[in-house]
Amino acid sequence: MTHAWNQLLPRLQELADLNSTAALLYWDQAVLMPPKGAAGRARSTATLESIAHNRLTDPAIGELLNELAAEDSLEESQRATVRILKREYDRATKLPDKLVKELAQVTGVAYQAWTEAKPISDFAAFQPHLEKIVELKKEQADAIGFERERYDALLDMYEPGMTSTEVEAMFSQLTEGLAPVVDAVLGRAREDHEFLRGEYNDGAKEQLCRWLVEQLGFDTEGGRLDTSPHPFTSGIGLGDVRQTTRYANVGLMESLYAAIHETGHALYEQGLPAEWRDLPAGQVPSFGLHESQSRMWENQVGRNRCFTDWLLPHLKELFENELGTATPEEFHRAVNQPQRSLIRVEADELTYNLHIALRFELELALFRDELAVADLPDAWDEGMEKHLGVRPKSHAEGVLQDMHWSIGIQGYFPTYSLGTLYAAAFFAKAESELDGLTDDFRKGDTSRLLEWLRSNIHSKASLYEAKDLAEKVLGGPFSATPFVDYLKDKYRELYDLSI
Amino acid sequence: MTHAWNQLLPRLQELADLNSTAALLYWDQAVLMPPKGAAGRARSTATLESIAHNRLTDPAIGELLNELAAEDSLEESQRATVRILKREYDRATKLPDKLVKELAQVTGVAYQAWTEAKPISDFAAFQPHLEKIVELKKEQADAIGFERERYDALLDMYEPGMTSTEVEAMFSQLTEGLAPVVDAVLGRAREDHEFLRGEYNDGAKEQLCRWLVEQLGFDTEGGRLDTSPHPFTSGIGLGDVRQTTRYANVGLMESLYAAIHETGHALYEQGLPAEWRDLPAGQVPSFGLHESQSRMWENQVGRNRCFTDWLLPHLKELFENELGTATPEEFHRAVNQPQRSLIRVEADELTYNLHIALRFELELALFRDELAVADLPDAWDEGMEKHLGVRPKSHAEGVLQDMHWSIGIQGYFPTYSLGTLYAAAFFAKAESELDGLTDDFRKGDTSRLLEWLRSNIHSKASLYEAKDLAEKVLGGPFSATPFVDYLKDKYRELYDLSI
Repeated sequence: MTHAWNQLLPRLQELADLNSTAALLYWDQAVLMPPKGAAGRARSTATLESIAHNRLTDPAIGELLNELAAEDSLEESQRATVRILKREYDRATKLPDKLVKELAQVTGVAYQAWTEAKPISDFAAFQPHLEKIVELKKEQADAIGFERERYDALLDMYEPGMTSTEVEAMFSQLTEGLAPVVDAVLGRAREDHEFLRGEYNDGAKEQLCRWLVEQLGFDTEGGRLDTSPHPFTSGIGLGDVRQTTRYANVGLMESLYAAIHETGHALYEQGLPAEWRDLPAGQVPSFGLHESQSRMWENQVGRNRCFTDWLLPHLKELFENELGTATPEEFHRAVNQPQRSLIRVEADELTYNLHIALRFELELALFRDELAVADLPDAWDEGMEKHLGVRPKSHAEGVLQDMHWSIGIQGYFPTYSLGTLYAAAFFAKAESELDGLTDDFRKGDTSRLLEWLRSNIHSKASLYEAKDLAEKVLGGPFSATPFVDYLKDKYRELYDLSI
Repeated sequence: MTHAWNQLLPRLQELADLNSTAALLYWDQAVLMPPKGAAGRARSTATLESIAHNRLTDPAIGELLNELAAEDSLEESQRATVRILKREYDRATKLPDKLVKELAQVTGVAYQAWTEAKPISDFAAFQPHLEKIVELKKEQADAIGFERERYDALLDMYEPGMTSTEVEAMFSQLTEGLAPVVDAVLGRAREDHEFLRGEYNDGAKEQLCRWLVEQLGFDTEGGRLDTSPHPFTSGIGLGDVRQTTRYANVGLMESLYAAIHETGHALYEQGLPAEWRDLPAGQVPSFGLHESQSRMWENQVGRNRCFTDWLLPHLKELFENELGTATPEEFHRAVNQPQRSLIRVEADELTYNLHIALRFELELALFRDELAVADLPDAWDEGMEKHLGVRPKSHAEGVLQDMHWSIGIQGYFPTYSLGTLYAAAFFAKAESELDGLTDDFRKGDTSRLLEWLRSNIHSKASLYEAKDLAEKVLGGPFSATPFVDYLKDKYRELYDLSI
């Protein structure tokens, strides 16, 4: 190891410790913290982040990175670390302190305003806050810099290396490819499965989820499953990966599929290489890649007929009254039924990306100065008509439904769609390499899939950017085709369609 | 506010945030953390403490403290803050880095050695570790400095301002005062209460404890009750005070009285003044004072006949089978029965301080160079014979029973006894000021006591050193007499003795 690397390493370790601590503060806040602790926690978190920011922007780091850029004896993980750290260092040092603080302050107030405006559908009350945020995000993008397009600077924070041109191409391929499926599938009458409306006992739901996440490979010696209003997963550290689901006030399927989804995230975190735990190269390379794992376990595994056939008898053991009469086919149809909906978080596999396409188009137009915040509500409603053939009756179920814009993470939405597309492409590749993969699922055995993910994706961490890793895994360029094919196959079989 | 104070305040706020974060890391480790998270957590904690240490020992703090020492316009809370911070700053800057690191390293290894030596009663295996610790603790005491006695420098870390001379006087007053009680009470045959051996359902125990801590005034909007193998309380921050008890593998009384004890700690933390939350002056002044609150709620309230008479019917609602036939008198006798025991943590109110007196004598002798570590086991066994009239059959139930010495907190034990003595003295004072106080307990009403504690003790935080605060509350010097009188009254009534 080189002299410069030996000087950088303890700094990386300290940053890793601070990030791990910050992750615990957030996790605890979302899962356990008593309400009156909020003010103190906000301050502790801000203090910790300010310390981490100061450590990251220490000019000594810039000098070490320059030295290391000239080294040619670095290992792969070291080179990747230098690449990622340089991106983070440049971004952190380019942003004026004043802008960072203003963004934190403005989004704090805007989030509060959004929570008040949404229930009463009052876009006008939220509008000035969003206008200020868009203005600051433009400043932020300009300070960071970009090659072709301002929006790229924002996208790059969540999906490093990805550009709006690529995302635009992906969405048009997707919407074109899915158009015949959407027409054929969403025209059908909605099936009514009575067992979806059953009263499932919360304790039994918890027992089920605890059992299932372990079945899928989640290591409870190195992680936890808890509850929170919005399910999420947090890698506190390598031996401490925490996921949540929810039981109260939701149906069995919501508890179950949230747990499967989060297990996908958690398995990824638990599969990161221990020897790189302190290196930026040892982390997940992008939000889209992270989402690919959760989506794959939720959809390609969890909604696969082989898997639901295995799962149903286990559910019946706990819920004989509620599920006793459900047939394997009914159960599979129930967890795969698409519908036109207004709300993104309730959308199914087929329509989900159409919700995201709309948000991406609107964000792009905002940051190209082609759309004013004041015109967002109309643009939203028209976009819903175009993409999904439905029109919101209120802003609460329209332009105000998501919290993302209020907290200033413009550029994040596309990673959800990238995740679903990566998931389908990876799963198709895994199937082509692992004979009879889905047959394993009939026995509840997902171990060959997990091994494949471990060796092809998890163990690579951030050696490569997400897109490059995907190309390596797929042995060729990444596209929306596997996802479109996957959905066509699914609905063709389910509804006997010729698409 | 002065210029120097305005410069100090943000530093105090940052230190408070770091301390709060460290408290959460410890709490999570003891309550929730998955086993494989231990290594990462140890590092995060060390990093956080190292940052806090660097902030505290910044020479700028020393300069500000000097400026503020010369100010005469400071408020009471500011003056107290300067006094406490100066003590902390001096101690932190006097200790050589090498010694701090060596102590951390040596105690880490020694604790591990102790966990291995205790089950097999192998003092010889632990001896070299303890010898090294005592050597380093002497160095530490010498570096910090003291007026009369080396041990004072250690004691002072946990009970600021208290000296060994005072503790010695307290223990001799205590052992002399209690001698006739001990002779009279411990000579009696042990009563056998069958209901103490009942199988109490863990879920019902939890339901009971959750209800009881709220009855006593614990604010669950600003705190939590969880479980851990060793019950403890941690003030993460003002609106976030967390206590634990345990249900599994212990009897009902252990769950119950641990919860009442910890509630005493928690009420103290929840009663600290919000406006001083970031100031050293706004914290609890000593470990002994903290323990005074837990002991008072556990013993003076929880084992009082008026309280147990109120509690028993509530217990019977949940545990009809197990407790249905217990009379109020039997129940009260059961939770107040003293006995000669070998183990400190199982000791009752009467004998507990005798266990502590022994540990204090041994620690004092070690640090006066009057006793060698090698001679500790014999000295222990002789001391047990002298104080309690029993002799351990093994080192596991003798000199190796406590973890304290292995983690290097020599000087801590006396605070347990100080706590019990403060508790009795404060309670006697409260009774003298609040007419018919214990009659309130017959209705489960402890609100007048809590108000009295809030106004006389909690709200004062660290305006004064513990001893001075006690004198103010008591309106005169603090002594062991109220505690001795309290126990004499208790056992006179219980066993119809003439003591």
